[in-house]
Amino acid sequence: MEAKRSLLAIFLLLSFLSISTAAPTRKTRTRKPCKSMLFYFHDIIYNGHNAKNATSAIVGSPQWGNKTLLTGQNHFGDLVVFDDPITLDNNLHSKPVGRAQGFYIYDKKDIFTAWLGFSFVFNSTQHKGSINFAGADPLMNKTRDISVIGGTGDFFMARGVATLMTDAFEGEVYFRLRTDINLYECW
Amino acid sequence: MEAKRSLLAIFLLLSFLSISTAAPTRKTRTRKPCKSMLFYFHDIIYNGHNAKNATSAIVGSPQWGNKTLLTGQNHFGDLVVFDDPITLDNNLHSKPVGRAQGFYIYDKKDIFTAWLGFSFVFNSTQHKGSINFAGADPLMNKTRDISVIGGTGDFFMARGVATLMTDAFEGEVYFRLRTDINLYECW
Amino acid sequence: MEAKRSLLAIFLLLSFLSISTAAPTRKTRTRKPCKSMLFYFHDIIYNGHNAKNATSAIVGSPQWGNKTLLTGQNHFGDLVVFDDPITLDNNLHSKPVGRAQGFYIYDKKDIFTAWLGFSFVFNSTQHKGSINFAGADPLMNKTRDISVIGGTGDFFMARGVATLMTDAFEGEVYFRLRTDINLYECW
Repeated sequence: MEAKRSLLAIFLLLSFLSISTAAPTRKTRTRKPCKSMLFYFHDIIYNGHNAKNATSAIVGSPQWGNKTLLTGQNHFGDLVVFDDPITLDNNLHSKPVGRAQGFYIYDKKDIFTAWLGFSFVFNSTQHKGSINFAGADPLMNKTRDISVIGGTGDFFMARGVATLMTDAFEGEVYFRLRTDINLYECW
Repeated sequence: MEAKRSLLAIFLLLSFLSISTAAPTRKTRTRKPCKSMLFYFHDIIYNGHNAKNATSAIVGSPQWGNKTLLTGQNHFGDLVVFDDPITLDNNLHSKPVGRAQGFYIYDKKDIFTAWLGFSFVFNSTQHKGSINFAGADPLMNKTRDISVIGGTGDFFMARGVATLMTDAFEGEVYFRLRTDINLYECW
Repeated sequence: MEAKRSLLAIFLLLSFLSISTAAPTRKTRTRKPCKSMLFYFHDIIYNGHNAKNATSAIVGSPQWGNKTLLTGQNHFGDLVVFDDPITLDNNLHSKPVGRAQGFYIYDKKDIFTAWLGFSFVFNSTQHKGSINFAGADPLMNKTRDISVIGGTGDFFMARGVATLMTDAFEGEVYFRLRTDINLYECW
């Protein structure tokens, strides 16, 4: 009798367990990051006079634009390529821990907004590998979320969300982005 | 005796269960979307005469091209930046529910084909957040699949497939894309 | 007595099992690929004289550059669009099995480095569908890892890492990339 009851109890348990494992990828996801990191990167746009210091340059522009001056209409149509130093604090002169490499395109006439495709590339004792990003960057918002779409090396197969915040903006030559990276898939 | 038999049965069940849970990320995935959405977006390319209405512009072109006219050879080499209204139906004049922002590059000489990198950006009571896309768009196919590579806000960490269909194509100035989004990873 | 003992044993087993399934997306991930593939693709850059054979063209360049010659300073700022044949071996004249379509942007002044966004597009009896890639390509490294950010058709929802290796580099017109694709998410 007791054996039968225990058997029943176990079957019930098993049924419950098998239901809860049926769609594990859907039910067990938590929004708690598996890794969080904070970086800053620094962009100095080429303006015709700063070839030595510049870390980025306009390489595409609309018919009415040119390549030494960001165009009017909120820079709509300007394509900028960059290779920016990444630092751990907000000081341009701190020792870089990696490079932010890729592009942004200003894509709206009414307000500042850009589309970003870039990577953080690390090759130090602390981090080796890359984190790849893509997404819309509505610059005028205090914070903007873009996607971490993949990673390699230390960041193998990473996915997550990065929150960008403009930490400084000087003239139309220098800006600094605070980047809070939260990974939700770590391997 | 009965207890022993039940024990055996349970061990068999457990073995089976543990096998089926050993690689859950691989075996339990279904191709049933966790979220499906349908949108249209509308692209009006700048042609030198329509600055007011245009939602996109050529910002890169090959040596033989220019920026007010899509080039010959199936526009090979033209890079177009866009900020297009998204609507729920196929009417250009319907109230936009968001913006499609990013770029496409025509990348083939023999037929129309482009590579797309863009986002759907929503900021309404219905949807807040963004969906990021990337992929090849062989325009001449009736339907084309691209990847949903990430998302933020309401679409946090989304992954999936979007099916594009050219819903209208007028002159070389206006086209409308029907976009069926199917997410297979929802958080 | 025996029934009680077996009950206890089973509860212990179940507890263990339920712990091991609690966070399956995090704990059960293995770095063993679910699919591995090897391809080569071949890029012939337009240089003003090879329009017939060229598979790619410069469509963006910095202020000091032009579109028939890769610029100095390690091509910094050159944006190249491509539609390259994919082959199974390293012979340019082998029958193509698909096309590599997308773009790269040289993004560093000091050394050769590019950012890549592209797709492998297949439409044969062997493979139908596309694989989408993004990432940094520090060309001077023997091998470079980029991300597989999605896929469609036969490669539905794929994620993984692709390892690029420069297999040939002739003048500044032709290069061939060996591409080892390892998928870690297969659906």
